[in-house]
Amino acid sequence: MFKANIYVTLKKSIFDPQGKAAENSLVTLGFKNIRNTRIGKFIEIELDENDKNIAFEITKEMCEKLLVNFNIETYRFELEEI
Amino acid sequence: MFKANIYVTLKKSIFDPQGKAAENSLVTLGFKNIRNTRIGKFIEIELDENDKNIAFEITKEMCEKLLVNFNIETYRFELEEI
Repeated sequence: MFKANIYVTLKKSIFDPQGKAAENSLVTLGFKNIRNTRIGKFIEIELDENDKNIAFEITKEMCEKLLVNFNIETYRFELEEI
Repeated sequence: MFKANIYVTLKKSIFDPQGKAAENSLVTLGFKNIRNTRIGKFIEIELDENDKNIAFEITKEMCEKLLVNFNIETYRFELEEI
């Protein structure tokens, strides 16, 4: 079995209002030396599949069909044997 | 300078409705062999700080003061030199 750890982030060119709001709050709290705060998603999915190549293809397909909005987001993932 | 990559996840004991909804959609799309889908946050923050130990402490403090809700979430992070 494998666990897919998928990182979905907004493309660099897309404004991230959630990240900006968090950054503003952090600056208000006194954390002055920070910049480019971005908030993405960290998705974990367990796959009942023993072949790593197939697990890789399934994960890629799940990202392409549902998990990632390619207009504004990009992604990467890694597979961990469990 | 460092970039903090922060992974915020719901505690194992906390129900994740967003993860469950995504999993149900994936199953509907034909991805049958999946389970325990969890959706957390992946937060990236650049720190204008050259001392890795200080960057570590600042990141920890930002998590504790704002970014993580310790009632329901847990976190880990890594620092990447940029």
